[in-house]
Amino acid sequence: MAIELSARQQQILEIVRLEGPITGEQIAEKLNLTRATLRPDLAILTMAGFLEARPRVGYFYAGKKTSEIFGEQLRKMLVKDHKAVPVVISENATVYDAIVAMFVEDVGNLSVVKDHGILAGVISRKDLLKVAIGKQETQSVPVSLVMTRMPNVITVTGEDNVYNAARKLVENAVDSLPVVKVLDAERKQYEVIGRFTKTTVTKIFVELGSNREI
Amino acid sequence: MAIELSARQQQILEIVRLEGPITGEQIAEKLNLTRATLRPDLAILTMAGFLEARPRVGYFYAGKKTSEIFGEQLRKMLVKDHKAVPVVISENATVYDAIVAMFVEDVGNLSVVKDHGILAGVISRKDLLKVAIGKQETQSVPVSLVMTRMPNVITVTGEDNVYNAARKLVENAVDSLPVVKVLDAERKQYEVIGRFTKTTVTKIFVELGSNREI
Repeated sequence: MAIELSARQQQILEIVRLEGPITGEQIAEKLNLTRATLRPDLAILTMAGFLEARPRVGYFYAGKKTSEIFGEQLRKMLVKDHKAVPVVISENATVYDAIVAMFVEDVGNLSVVKDHGILAGVISRKDLLKVAIGKQETQSVPVSLVMTRMPNVITVTGEDNVYNAARKLVENAVDSLPVVKVLDAERKQYEVIGRFTKTTVTKIFVELGSNREI
Repeated sequence: MAIELSARQQQILEIVRLEGPITGEQIAEKLNLTRATLRPDLAILTMAGFLEARPRVGYFYAGKKTSEIFGEQLRKMLVKDHKAVPVVISENATVYDAIVAMFVEDVGNLSVVKDHGILAGVISRKDLLKVAIGKQETQSVPVSLVMTRMPNVITVTGEDNVYNAARKLVENAVDSLPVVKVLDAERKQYEVIGRFTKTTVTKIFVELGSNREI
Protein backbone atom coordinates (compact mmCIF):
# COMPACT_ATOMS: atom_id res chain seq x y z
CA MET A 1 0.00 0.00 0.00
CA ALA A 2 1.73 3.20 -1.10
CA ILE A 3 0.48 6.22 0.78
CA GLU A 4 0.83 9.63 -0.82
CA LEU A 5 1.58 12.08 1.94
CA SER A 6 0.90 15.77 1.50
CA ALA A 7 3.77 18.20 1.95
CA ARG A 8 2.39 19.18 5.33
CA GLN A 9 2.07 15.57 6.46
CA GLN A 10 5.70 15.00 5.48
CA GLN A 11 6.70 18.07 7.48
CA ILE A 12 4.86 16.70 10.49
CA LEU A 13 6.55 13.31 10.14
CA GLU A 14 9.93 14.98 9.94
CA ILE A 15 9.26 17.03 13.06
CA VAL A 16 8.09 14.00 15.03
CA ARG A 17 10.97 11.88 13.77
CA LEU A 18 13.49 14.47 14.98
CA GLU A 19 11.80 15.74 18.11
CA GLY A 20 9.23 13.18 19.21
CA PRO A 21 7.63 12.56 21.58
CA ILE A 22 6.02 15.91 20.94
CA THR A 23 2.48 17.18 21.56
CA GLY A 24 0.06 18.28 18.87
CA GLU A 25 0.20 21.80 20.29
CA GLN A 26 3.98 21.90 19.88
CA ILE A 27 3.82 20.60 16.32
CA ALA A 28 1.18 23.21 15.47
CA GLU A 29 3.38 25.93 16.94
CA LYS A 30 6.37 24.89 14.86
CA LEU A 31 4.27 25.04 11.71
CA ASN A 32 2.52 28.30 12.64
CA LEU A 33 -0.81 26.56 12.41
CA THR A 34 -3.63 25.93 14.88
CA ARG A 35 -4.07 22.58 16.55
CA ALA A 36 -7.49 22.32 14.87
CA THR A 37 -5.97 22.71 11.41
CA LEU A 38 -3.55 19.89 12.09
CA ARG A 39 -6.10 17.51 13.56
CA PRO A 40 -7.03 15.70 10.28
CA ASP A 41 -3.37 15.28 9.31
CA LEU A 42 -2.46 13.88 12.71
CA ALA A 43 -5.45 11.54 12.58
CA ILE A 44 -4.42 10.19 9.20
CA LEU A 45 -0.76 9.79 10.13
CA THR A 46 -1.77 7.96 13.28
CA MET A 47 -4.32 5.67 11.66
CA ALA A 48 -1.92 4.90 8.84
CA GLY A 49 0.65 3.75 11.38
CA PHE A 50 3.25 6.48 10.79
CA LEU A 51 2.76 8.01 14.19
CA GLU A 52 1.71 6.71 17.55
CA ALA A 53 -0.03 8.91 20.08
CA ARG A 54 0.16 8.46 23.83
CA PRO A 55 -2.00 10.46 26.24
CA ARG A 56 -0.02 13.07 28.14
CA VAL A 57 3.14 12.17 26.19
CA GLY A 58 2.45 13.17 22.63
CA TYR A 59 3.21 11.80 19.21
CA PHE A 60 6.18 9.66 18.33
CA TYR A 61 7.41 8.15 15.13
CA ALA A 62 6.22 4.62 14.36
CA GLY A 63 6.25 4.55 10.61
CA LYS A 64 7.33 1.40 8.87
CA LYS A 65 9.65 1.51 5.94
CA THR A 66 9.13 -0.49 2.79
CA SER A 67 12.04 -2.68 3.82
CA GLU A 68 10.25 -3.53 7.04
CA ILE A 69 7.21 -4.72 5.14
CA PHE A 70 9.52 -6.98 3.15
CA GLY A 71 11.01 -8.33 6.33
CA GLU A 72 7.62 -9.04 7.86
CA GLN A 73 6.36 -10.66 4.71
CA LEU A 74 9.37 -12.95 4.34
CA ARG A 75 9.08 -14.02 7.96
CA LYS A 76 5.47 -15.10 7.38
CA MET A 77 6.41 -17.35 4.45
CA LEU A 78 7.36 -20.83 5.59
CA VAL A 79 9.90 -23.21 4.07
CA LYS A 80 7.32 -26.02 3.92
CA ASP A 81 5.20 -24.02 1.47
CA HIS A 82 8.08 -23.24 -0.90
CA LYS A 83 10.57 -26.11 -0.65
CA ALA A 84 11.53 -28.31 -3.58
CA VAL A 85 11.16 -32.09 -3.53
CA PRO A 86 14.04 -33.96 -1.90
CA VAL A 87 16.66 -35.60 -4.11
CA VAL A 88 18.54 -38.24 -2.15
CA ILE A 89 21.11 -40.95 -2.66
CA SER A 90 22.09 -43.84 -0.41
CA GLU A 91 25.27 -43.56 1.62
CA ASN A 92 26.31 -46.83 0.00
CA ALA A 93 26.30 -45.28 -3.49
CA THR A 94 29.51 -44.35 -5.33
CA VAL A 95 30.64 -40.93 -6.50
CA TYR A 96 29.83 -42.09 -10.02
CA ASP A 97 26.24 -42.88 -8.98
CA ALA A 98 25.97 -39.42 -7.43
CA ILE A 99 27.18 -37.70 -10.61
CA VAL A 100 24.65 -39.66 -12.67
CA ALA A 101 21.87 -38.80 -10.19
CA MET A 102 22.73 -35.11 -10.42
CA PHE A 103 22.51 -35.15 -14.19
CA VAL A 104 19.32 -37.21 -14.24
CA GLU A 105 17.59 -35.03 -11.64
CA ASP A 106 19.27 -31.84 -12.85
CA VAL A 107 20.20 -30.66 -9.36
CA GLY A 108 23.44 -29.29 -7.95
CA ASN A 109 23.23 -30.99 -4.56
CA LEU A 110 22.11 -34.32 -3.13
CA SER A 111 21.19 -35.39 0.37
CA VAL A 112 22.96 -38.60 1.34
CA VAL A 113 20.73 -40.84 3.47
CA LYS A 114 20.90 -43.90 5.68
CA ASP A 115 18.04 -46.35 6.05
CA HIS A 116 14.56 -44.82 6.46
CA GLY A 117 15.65 -41.59 4.76
CA ILE A 118 17.71 -40.44 7.73
CA LEU A 119 20.15 -37.66 6.77
CA ALA A 120 23.78 -38.80 6.77
CA GLY A 121 25.32 -35.92 4.79
CA VAL A 122 25.18 -33.76 1.67
CA ILE A 123 27.22 -33.71 -1.51
CA SER A 124 27.61 -30.94 -4.08
CA ARG A 125 28.74 -30.60 -7.69
CA LYS A 126 31.89 -29.04 -6.32
CA ASP A 127 32.66 -32.09 -4.14
CA LEU A 128 32.12 -34.40 -7.10
CA LEU A 129 34.21 -32.28 -9.45
CA LYS A 130 37.07 -32.52 -6.97
CA VAL A 131 36.96 -36.31 -7.09
CA ALA A 132 36.42 -36.38 -10.84
CA ILE A 133 39.67 -34.55 -11.54
CA GLY A 134 41.57 -36.62 -8.99
CA LYS A 135 43.39 -39.85 -9.50
CA GLN A 136 40.71 -42.13 -8.08
CA GLU A 137 38.07 -43.90 -10.12
CA THR A 138 34.66 -42.32 -9.44
CA GLN A 139 33.15 -45.81 -9.49
CA SER A 140 35.27 -47.01 -6.61
CA VAL A 141 34.87 -44.06 -4.23
CA PRO A 142 31.79 -44.17 -1.94
CA VAL A 143 29.91 -40.84 -1.58
CA SER A 144 30.19 -41.20 2.18
CA LEU A 145 33.94 -40.58 1.84
CA VAL A 146 33.59 -37.18 0.18
CA MET A 147 30.29 -35.83 1.51
CA THR A 148 29.86 -33.20 4.21
CA ARG A 149 28.87 -35.37 7.13
CA MET A 150 26.33 -34.94 9.94
CA PRO A 151 26.36 -33.13 12.33
CA ASN A 152 28.18 -30.57 10.13
CA VAL A 153 25.29 -30.26 7.66
CA ILE A 154 23.30 -27.00 7.78
CA THR A 155 19.58 -27.83 7.70
CA VAL A 156 16.19 -26.13 7.98
CA THR A 157 12.78 -27.42 9.00
CA GLY A 158 9.47 -26.84 7.25
CA GLU A 159 8.43 -24.47 10.02
CA ASP A 160 11.42 -22.16 9.48
CA ASN A 161 10.65 -19.00 7.55
CA VAL A 162 12.14 -18.34 4.14
CA TYR A 163 14.08 -15.31 5.35
CA ASN A 164 16.00 -17.35 7.92
CA ALA A 165 16.53 -20.15 5.44
CA ALA A 166 17.95 -17.70 2.86
CA ARG A 167 20.18 -16.21 5.55
CA LYS A 168 21.57 -19.68 6.31
CA LEU A 169 22.44 -20.13 2.63
CA VAL A 170 24.32 -16.82 2.56
CA GLU A 171 26.04 -17.10 5.93
CA ASN A 172 27.24 -20.64 5.34
CA ALA A 173 28.05 -20.07 1.66
CA VAL A 174 26.13 -23.14 0.51
CA ASP A 175 23.80 -23.52 -2.47
CA SER A 176 21.28 -25.85 -0.89
CA LEU A 177 19.88 -26.91 2.49
CA PRO A 178 18.13 -30.19 3.23
CA VAL A 179 14.67 -29.55 4.67
CA VAL A 180 14.30 -31.99 7.54
CA LYS A 181 11.81 -33.34 10.03
CA VAL A 182 13.48 -33.73 13.39
CA LEU A 183 12.96 -37.28 14.68
CA ASP A 184 15.40 -37.13 17.58
CA ALA A 185 17.00 -33.74 18.21
CA GLU A 186 19.55 -34.97 20.72
CA ARG A 187 20.87 -37.74 18.51
CA LYS A 188 20.52 -35.58 15.37
CA GLN A 189 18.18 -38.03 13.68
CA TYR A 190 16.65 -36.00 10.84
CA GLU A 191 14.39 -37.29 8.09
CA VAL A 192 14.92 -35.53 4.72
CA ILE A 193 11.65 -34.08 3.41
CA GLY A 194 12.80 -31.51 0.86
CA ARG A 195 15.37 -29.03 -0.43
CA PHE A 196 15.67 -25.28 0.02
CA THR A 197 18.12 -23.82 -2.48
CA LYS A 198 19.24 -20.57 -4.05
CA THR A 199 16.96 -21.56 -6.93
CA THR A 200 14.05 -21.71 -4.46
CA VAL A 201 14.94 -18.21 -3.22
CA THR A 202 15.24 -16.87 -6.78
CA LYS A 203 11.81 -18.27 -7.64
CA ILE A 204 10.24 -16.68 -4.53
CA PHE A 205 11.98 -13.41 -5.42
CA VAL A 206 10.51 -13.42 -8.93
CA GLU A 207 7.09 -14.43 -7.64
CA LEU A 208 7.10 -11.61 -5.09
CA GLY A 209 8.20 -9.15 -7.73
CA SER A 210 5.57 -10.17 -10.24
CA ASN A 211 2.86 -7.92 -8.81
CA ARG A 212 0.62 -10.86 -8.18
CA GLU A 213 -0.95 -11.82 -4.90
CA ILE A 214 1.11 -14.26 -2.92
CA MET B 1 4.14 1.37 5.59
CA ALA B 2 1.63 -1.13 7.03
CA ILE B 3 -1.80 0.34 7.46
CA GLU B 4 -4.18 -1.29 9.92
CA LEU B 5 -7.65 -1.05 8.46
CA SER B 6 -10.72 -1.23 10.70
CA ALA B 7 -13.31 -3.91 9.99
CA ARG B 8 -15.57 -1.27 8.48
CA GLN B 9 -12.81 0.08 6.24
CA GLN B 10 -12.16 -3.45 4.99
CA GLN B 11 -15.87 -3.88 4.27
CA ILE B 12 -15.85 -0.66 2.28
CA LEU B 13 -12.81 -1.76 0.30
CA GLU B 14 -14.47 -5.07 -0.49
CA ILE B 15 -17.64 -3.35 -1.69
CA VAL B 16 -15.72 -0.95 -3.91
CA ARG B 17 -13.51 -3.71 -5.24
CA LEU B 18 -16.53 -5.75 -6.27
CA GLU B 19 -18.92 -3.02 -7.33
CA GLY B 20 -16.94 0.12 -8.00
CA PRO B 21 -17.31 2.72 -9.29
CA ILE B 22 -19.89 3.28 -6.60
CA THR B 23 -21.02 6.46 -4.81
CA GLY B 24 -20.61 7.14 -1.12
CA GLU B 25 -24.39 7.11 -0.79
CA GLN B 26 -24.60 3.63 -2.26
CA ILE B 27 -21.83 2.32 -0.01
CA ALA B 28 -23.58 3.79 3.03
CA GLU B 29 -26.84 2.15 2.00
CA LYS B 30 -25.20 -1.25 1.69
CA LEU B 31 -23.78 -0.90 5.18
CA ASN B 32 -26.96 0.52 6.71
CA LEU B 33 -25.05 3.61 7.76
CA THR B 34 -25.38 7.29 6.99
CA ARG B 35 -23.11 8.99 4.49
CA ALA B 36 -21.86 11.22 7.33
CA THR B 37 -20.76 8.23 9.40
CA LEU B 38 -18.75 6.90 6.50
CA ARG B 39 -17.07 10.17 5.61
CA PRO B 40 -13.94 9.74 7.78
CA ASP B 41 -13.41 6.17 6.57
CA LEU B 42 -13.75 7.17 2.93
CA ALA B 43 -11.38 10.09 3.49
CA ILE B 44 -8.74 7.84 5.01
CA LEU B 45 -9.10 5.14 2.34
CA THR B 46 -8.80 7.75 -0.37
CA MET B 47 -5.84 9.59 1.14
CA ALA B 48 -4.08 6.33 1.81
CA GLY B 49 -4.37 5.44 -1.85
CA PHE B 50 -6.74 2.47 -1.52
CA LEU B 51 -9.60 4.24 -3.24
CA GLU B 52 -9.85 6.91 -5.84
CA ALA B 53 -12.79 9.26 -5.99
CA ARG B 54 -14.07 10.91 -9.16
CA PRO B 55 -16.76 13.60 -9.08
CA ARG B 56 -20.11 12.36 -10.35
CA VAL B 57 -18.69 8.85 -10.80
CA GLY B 58 -17.92 7.62 -7.31
CA TYR B 59 -15.23 5.59 -5.65
CA PHE B 60 -13.17 2.94 -7.34
CA TYR B 61 -10.49 0.61 -6.13
CA ALA B 62 -6.90 1.79 -6.44
CA GLY B 63 -5.18 0.11 -3.54
CA LYS B 64 -1.78 -1.39 -3.92
CA LYS B 65 -1.00 -4.74 -2.43
CA THR B 66 2.17 -5.52 -0.52
CA SER B 67 3.26 -7.62 -3.48
CA GLU B 68 2.99 -4.56 -5.71
CA ILE B 69 5.33 -2.61 -3.47
CA PHE B 70 7.80 -5.48 -3.79
CA GLY B 71 7.49 -5.39 -7.53
CA GLU B 72 8.04 -1.64 -7.68
CA GLN B 73 10.98 -1.82 -5.34
CA LEU B 74 12.72 -4.63 -7.26
CA ARG B 75 12.25 -2.74 -10.52
CA LYS B 76 14.05 0.27 -9.05
CA MET B 77 17.10 -1.76 -8.04
CA LEU B 78 19.62 -2.01 -10.85
CA VAL B 79 21.97 -4.86 -11.69
CA LYS B 80 24.97 -2.51 -11.74
CA ASP B 81 24.51 -1.73 -8.05
CA HIS B 82 24.30 -5.38 -6.98
CA LYS B 83 26.39 -7.41 -9.43
CA ALA B 84 29.38 -9.47 -8.40
CA VAL B 85 32.83 -9.00 -9.93
CA PRO B 86 33.41 -10.81 -13.23
CA VAL B 87 35.35 -14.06 -13.23
CA VAL B 88 36.63 -14.82 -16.71
CA ILE B 89 38.86 -17.26 -18.51
CA SER B 90 40.40 -17.06 -21.98
CA GLU B 91 38.81 -19.05 -24.78
CA ASN B 92 42.24 -20.58 -25.31
CA ALA B 93 42.27 -22.14 -21.84
CA THR B 94 41.67 -25.86 -21.24
CA VAL B 95 38.87 -27.50 -19.27
CA TYR B 96 41.47 -28.27 -16.63
CA ASP B 97 42.34 -24.55 -16.35
CA ALA B 98 38.64 -23.76 -15.99
CA ILE B 99 38.17 -26.27 -13.18
CA VAL B 100 41.19 -24.85 -11.35
CA ALA B 101 39.87 -21.28 -11.84
CA MET B 102 36.49 -22.29 -10.41
CA PHE B 103 38.09 -23.72 -7.30
CA VAL B 104 40.46 -20.80 -6.86
CA GLU B 105 37.72 -18.19 -7.31
CA ASP B 106 35.07 -20.35 -5.63
CA VAL B 107 32.45 -19.71 -8.30
CA GLY B 108 30.13 -22.05 -10.15
CA ASN B 109 30.32 -20.33 -13.53
CA LEU B 110 32.92 -18.59 -15.66
CA SER B 111 32.62 -16.20 -18.58
CA VAL B 112 34.83 -17.26 -21.46
CA VAL B 113 36.35 -14.27 -23.24
CA LYS B 114 38.18 -13.35 -26.41
CA ASP B 115 40.70 -10.53 -26.63
CA HIS B 116 39.72 -7.29 -24.88
CA GLY B 117 37.32 -9.11 -22.55
CA ILE B 118 34.75 -9.69 -25.29
CA LEU B 119 32.25 -12.40 -24.28
CA ALA B 120 32.69 -15.64 -26.25
CA GLY B 121 30.65 -17.98 -24.04
CA VAL B 122 29.98 -19.29 -20.53
CA ILE B 123 30.89 -22.50 -18.77
CA SER B 124 29.36 -24.06 -15.66
CA ARG B 125 30.36 -26.65 -13.09
CA LYS B 126 27.89 -28.95 -14.77
CA ASP B 127 29.62 -28.59 -18.15
CA LEU B 128 32.98 -29.32 -16.56
CA LEU B 129 31.70 -32.29 -14.60
CA LYS B 130 30.44 -33.77 -17.85
CA VAL B 131 33.92 -33.61 -19.37
CA ALA B 132 35.59 -34.74 -16.16
CA ILE B 133 33.71 -38.03 -16.11
CA GLY B 134 34.24 -38.56 -19.84
CA LYS B 135 37.07 -40.33 -21.57
CA GLN B 136 38.97 -37.20 -22.62
CA GLU B 137 41.81 -35.65 -20.66
CA THR B 138 40.66 -32.35 -19.15
CA GLN B 139 44.06 -30.88 -20.00
CA SER B 140 43.65 -31.50 -23.70
CA VAL B 141 40.08 -30.20 -24.18
CA PRO B 142 39.76 -26.44 -24.82
CA VAL B 143 36.91 -24.70 -22.93
CA SER B 144 35.67 -23.30 -26.21
CA LEU B 145 34.65 -26.85 -27.19
CA VAL B 146 32.31 -27.38 -24.23
CA MET B 147 31.09 -23.87 -23.37
CA THR B 148 27.70 -22.41 -24.23
CA ARG B 149 28.63 -20.16 -27.12
CA MET B 150 27.52 -16.69 -28.15
CA PRO B 151 24.91 -15.73 -29.32
CA ASN B 152 23.23 -18.40 -27.17
CA VAL B 153 24.39 -16.88 -23.88
CA ILE B 154 21.73 -15.16 -21.76
CA THR B 155 23.11 -11.82 -20.55
CA VAL B 156 22.01 -8.72 -18.66
CA THR B 157 23.31 -5.16 -18.66
CA GLY B 158 24.02 -2.99 -15.64
CA GLU B 159 20.94 -0.92 -16.44
CA ASP B 160 18.60 -3.92 -16.21
CA ASN B 161 16.66 -4.15 -12.97
CA VAL B 162 17.21 -7.02 -10.55
CA TYR B 163 13.66 -8.33 -11.01
CA ASN B 164 14.16 -8.87 -14.73
CA ALA B 165 17.60 -10.33 -14.15
CA ALA B 166 16.21 -12.82 -11.61
CA ARG B 167 13.43 -13.70 -14.01
CA LYS B 168 16.01 -14.51 -16.70
CA LEU B 169 17.75 -16.87 -14.28
CA VAL B 170 14.51 -18.72 -13.55
CA GLU B 171 13.13 -18.79 -17.09
CA ASN B 172 16.36 -20.00 -18.64
CA ALA B 173 17.20 -22.35 -15.76
CA VAL B 174 20.73 -21.02 -15.39
CA ASP B 175 22.65 -20.19 -12.20
CA SER B 176 24.52 -17.16 -13.47
CA LEU B 177 24.34 -14.40 -16.08
CA PRO B 178 27.28 -12.39 -17.38
CA VAL B 179 26.68 -8.67 -16.86
CA VAL B 180 27.78 -7.00 -20.07
CA LYS B 181 28.38 -3.64 -21.65
CA VAL B 182 27.10 -3.67 -25.19
CA LEU B 183 29.86 -2.51 -27.57
CA ASP B 184 28.14 -3.46 -30.81
CA ALA B 185 24.57 -4.73 -30.49
CA GLU B 186 24.27 -5.90 -34.07
CA ARG B 187 27.45 -7.96 -34.05
CA LYS B 188 26.83 -9.09 -30.44
CA GLN B 189 30.09 -7.63 -29.18
CA TYR B 190 29.67 -7.56 -25.42
CA GLU B 191 32.30 -6.68 -22.85
CA VAL B 192 32.00 -8.67 -19.60
CA ILE B 193 31.75 -6.35 -16.58
CA GLY B 194 30.27 -8.58 -13.88
CA ARG B 195 28.16 -11.54 -12.82
CA PHE B 196 24.54 -11.75 -11.68
CA THR B 197 23.86 -15.09 -10.02
CA LYS B 198 21.37 -16.90 -7.79
CA THR B 199 23.81 -16.05 -5.00
CA THR B 200 23.40 -12.36 -5.87
CA VAL B 201 19.62 -12.74 -5.70
CA THR B 202 19.80 -14.60 -2.39
CA LYS B 203 21.96 -11.83 -0.92
CA ILE B 204 19.52 -9.13 -2.08
CA PHE B 205 16.66 -11.19 -0.66
CA VAL B 206 18.32 -11.40 2.75
CA GLU B 207 19.26 -7.72 2.66
CA LEU B 208 15.68 -6.73 1.83
CA GLY B 209 14.35 -8.95 4.55
CA SER B 210 16.70 -7.63 7.22
CA ASN B 211 14.51 -4.69 8.18
CA ARG B 212 17.25 -2.27 7.33
CA GLU B 213 17.04 0.65 4.97
CA ILE B 214 18.08 -0.25 1.46
